[in-house]
Amino acid sequence: MIKIAVMGHGVVGSGVVEVFYKNRESIQQKAGHEMDIAHILDLREFPETPYADKFTKNFDDILNDETVKIVVETMGGVHPAYDYVKACLQNGKSVVTSNKELVATMGAELIHIAKDKNVNFLFEASVGGGIPILRPITQCLAANEITEIDGILNGTTNYILTQMIQNAVSFEDALKTAQQLGYAERDPSADVDGHDACRKICILSALAFGKHVYPKQVYTEGISKITLADVAYLESIHHVIKLIGKTKKLEGGKHVFATVYPAVISSHCQLASVDDVYNAVMVRGDAIGDVVFYGRGAGKLPTASAVVADVIDCAKHLETRKLLCWADGDDDYVADYKTDTVGMYVRMNGNTDAIKADVNGAFSGVKFLSRADAPADEIAFVTPAMPEKAFDEKMQAVGGEIQSKIRVLDL
Amino acid sequence: MIKIAVMGHGVVGSGVVEVFYKNRESIQQKAGHEMDIAHILDLREFPETPYADKFTKNFDDILNDETVKIVVETMGGVHPAYDYVKACLQNGKSVVTSNKELVATMGAELIHIAKDKNVNFLFEASVGGGIPILRPITQCLAANEITEIDGILNGTTNYILTQMIQNAVSFEDALKTAQQLGYAERDPSADVDGHDACRKICILSALAFGKHVYPKQVYTEGISKITLADVAYLESIHHVIKLIGKTKKLEGGKHVFATVYPAVISSHCQLASVDDVYNAVMVRGDAIGDVVFYGRGAGKLPTASAVVADVIDCAKHLETRKLLCWADGDDDYVADYKTDTVGMYVRMNGNTDAIKADVNGAFSGVKFLSRADAPADEIAFVTPAMPEKAFDEKMQAVGGEIQSKIRVLDL
Repeated sequence: MIKIAVMGHGVVGSGVVEVFYKNRESIQQKAGHEMDIAHILDLREFPETPYADKFTKNFDDILNDETVKIVVETMGGVHPAYDYVKACLQNGKSVVTSNKELVATMGAELIHIAKDKNVNFLFEASVGGGIPILRPITQCLAANEITEIDGILNGTTNYILTQMIQNAVSFEDALKTAQQLGYAERDPSADVDGHDACRKICILSALAFGKHVYPKQVYTEGISKITLADVAYLESIHHVIKLIGKTKKLEGGKHVFATVYPAVISSHCQLASVDDVYNAVMVRGDAIGDVVFYGRGAGKLPTASAVVADVIDCAKHLETRKLLCWADGDDDYVADYKTDTVGMYVRMNGNTDAIKADVNGAFSGVKFLSRADAPADEIAFVTPAMPEKAFDEKMQAVGGEIQSKIRVLDL
Repeated sequence: MIKIAVMGHGVVGSGVVEVFYKNRESIQQKAGHEMDIAHILDLREFPETPYADKFTKNFDDILNDETVKIVVETMGGVHPAYDYVKACLQNGKSVVTSNKELVATMGAELIHIAKDKNVNFLFEASVGGGIPILRPITQCLAANEITEIDGILNGTTNYILTQMIQNAVSFEDALKTAQQLGYAERDPSADVDGHDACRKICILSALAFGKHVYPKQVYTEGISKITLADVAYLESIHHVIKLIGKTKKLEGGKHVFATVYPAVISSHCQLASVDDVYNAVMVRGDAIGDVVFYGRGAGKLPTASAVVADVIDCAKHLETRKLLCWADGDDDYVADYKTDTVGMYVRMNGNTDAIKADVNGAFSGVKFLSRADAPADEIAFVTPAMPEKAFDEKMQAVGGEIQSKIRVLDL
C-alpha cells in the first residue's frame, strides 16, 4: 500500500482527490500498487467532504509519516510550497506538483535534491494543465535535437484574443466576460501581462535545452494594448494575434532566445486555430519536424488528471529516478531578444503620405494594410523579418506617432 | 555498452541508423548507457553506407548474439517479422517496432511473451509516425477513463482529401500527384481503402481500452468514392470530409465501436484543420476533456525518431517491464457499427421534387444543401444523428438513386 499526501485543497488539489477516488481501481491497476490518500493539508476547514478525517493543518503530520511515499503539492506560490517540497524530497518522498511558479524559479535546485535522494520530482501539470507535454518532450522526442518551442500557454489571454478576433469585442469587454466566466482572476495581471506564460516557457526551455531559464530573464509583454483596429488590419491579410511563448536554441547551443509577447501569425499556422481557453504547444525537432499538443490548458479536472498521472508514474518508479534533469542557469544564457529576427506590424497616426514616404525610404518590401472605417490619419504596415535592433534603427527615420507595434512570427 | 540490432534497412530502418548516429551523444546521455548498433539485417546489399560491415543476411547472427539487448524491427508485413520478433522476445531481448500490421494482428500475443520474459515490446512508431501518442495515452492520460479516440491516421488519404477540398482537384488527379510526390504507393489500396488507418485504430483501441481489436472486426471504408460534388455541397455548410478512424467505449465498457470511414466534420473541429500529409489524434478522457496530438504521421526521420525514443526507453528500463498490456480480443467485443449514432449526408439523382417530398416524409429535421452548377436532377441533404440502422430503414421510403452517402460525426 502506497500512501499519498495532498498539500493544498484548492481547485487543483480537490480535483486530485476527486479524480483519485473516482478512478481509483484503474489507477491502482496502472500503478501496480494499492494506493490511498493518507493526509490532506489545508488551513481551511472542509467539514462537508467525505474525506474530512484526512485533513490536517500541520505539515509535520505529512513529513514525519514514513508510510507516505508520494506528496502532491497544489498550494501554489513559492512560499511555503518551496520549503515543504524541499523538506519532503530531503526526507526521501517523491513530490508531484502543478505549481509553475515554484518549478520556474526553483526547479533546478529541487531536481538536484530529488536526484541526490533517489526520488522523483514531477511536474507535468505545471505546463498546459492536463495536456501531456513535458513527458512527451523528455521521452518520446528523446531522439530529436529540439530546436524551438512555440506555445499558446495561457487560456485566459487566448480567450480574450479569440473574443476580439471572432466577435470584435474590445479587450476591456472581453476581460470582463472572462472574469464573469471564472477564466480570469479579479486581479488579472498574472495572465494578461504574460507572467503565467513566462513561467511556463521557462519550464519548457529548461526541459528542452537542459538549462534553467529564470522568469526575470524572459522578455515578457502582455496583451492589454492590443486593439480591434490591429485585429482588423491583420485579418485583411489572413493573420491573427496570439500570445506566444517562444524558446529557441541559437547556433552552437550556448544561448537561447526566450520571450513572451503578442505575435502576429498566419492563419495557416496550426496555432492560429487554437481558440478560447485552449492551449497548444508546438515543438520543433530535427528528426520529427513540427509536433503540436493541444487541449485544455487549465481547469480543475484536466490539471488534476495530469497530477494523478505523475502520481502513478511515481508509484511505478518508487526507487528508479527518472532521468529528468537540467542545470542551473546563468546570466549570459538568454540572448538579447532585440537580436532575434522578427517582422513587425506597425500602426501609426500622422500625415499618412509623409509616413508612407518615410517607411518606403527606410525599409524595402513593406506591405501596407487597410481596414474598413480607418481614420484618415491612420496607416498600418508590416515589415519583412529582420533583427529587431535593425527595425528600431530604421524606424528612427520615420515620422508620425506609433500606436501599435506587434512582432510577426513565421512559425 | 548496450548493443542494438536493426532488422530491415528500408526507409524507416535506414532512418533509425541515421538518427542514432547523428544524435548518438545525447541519446546515450538520455539513456544513461553507452550504446551501439551491432547488426543490420537486410537481404539487399548496401556497399555505399559507412556501416557496411554491420550488415548481415542471417537472422541467427542477431538472435544468438547475447550482447544484443534491443532489436529494432522495421521490416514491415507479418511474415517473417512475426517469427523474428517472437524469437527475439523469447530469447530475452527487448523489441521496438514501427510495424503496425504486426502489432494490429499479433500485438496481444507478443506483449504477453514480453511480459513473461521481463523484457519490453514497444511500438510508438506504429501509430502517427513520430507523433507521441501511445506513450501519452498509457502514461500521461493514465488518470483518465478514456471514452473515445478519433483520428486522422493516414497521411496519403489526408493529402488527397486536402487537394480535393482546397484546390478542387479530383480524387484521381490528387492520387496521381500523391504518387508522383512519393506519398502514395504504386498500388495505393492499403492507404486509399483505409486498411492502414484500420490497423492504427486497432492499436489505439487496444491501448485505450485494454482489449485487442482485430483489423477484420473493424468496418473499413476508403475514400475512392468521394467526389468534388460532395466536397462542394459540404463546403456550403462549413463542413469538410476527412478519413476518420474511431474507437468508442460503449456504456458499461464491455463493447466498443471501431470504424474507419470518410466522415463529414464541422470546420470548427480541431481535426478539420489538419491538412496535407499531417496526422492528428483526438483523445477524449473523463477528466482531461479533448486532447489532440498533431504532426507528421509518416516519413523516414519522423518515424525513425519515434523508434529511437523507444530504444532509449528500453535502454533505461532493461529489467523493468513497462506496464503496457492488453488482453486478447473476442468475437463479440466490437459492436455492430450500424447501431452507432451518426448523421448522414446523402446525394441523389432523380425527380428532385419527389425525392424532397419522400425525404421530408421519412425524416424530420433534414437540411437540404446547394452548390453552384448542380444538375437539375441532383439533390443533397444531411439528416440528424440517429442509429445507422434507423437511417437505412427510413431511406427505404425514399425514391431516386443514391450517389453518395457519407456519415456525419459531431466530434
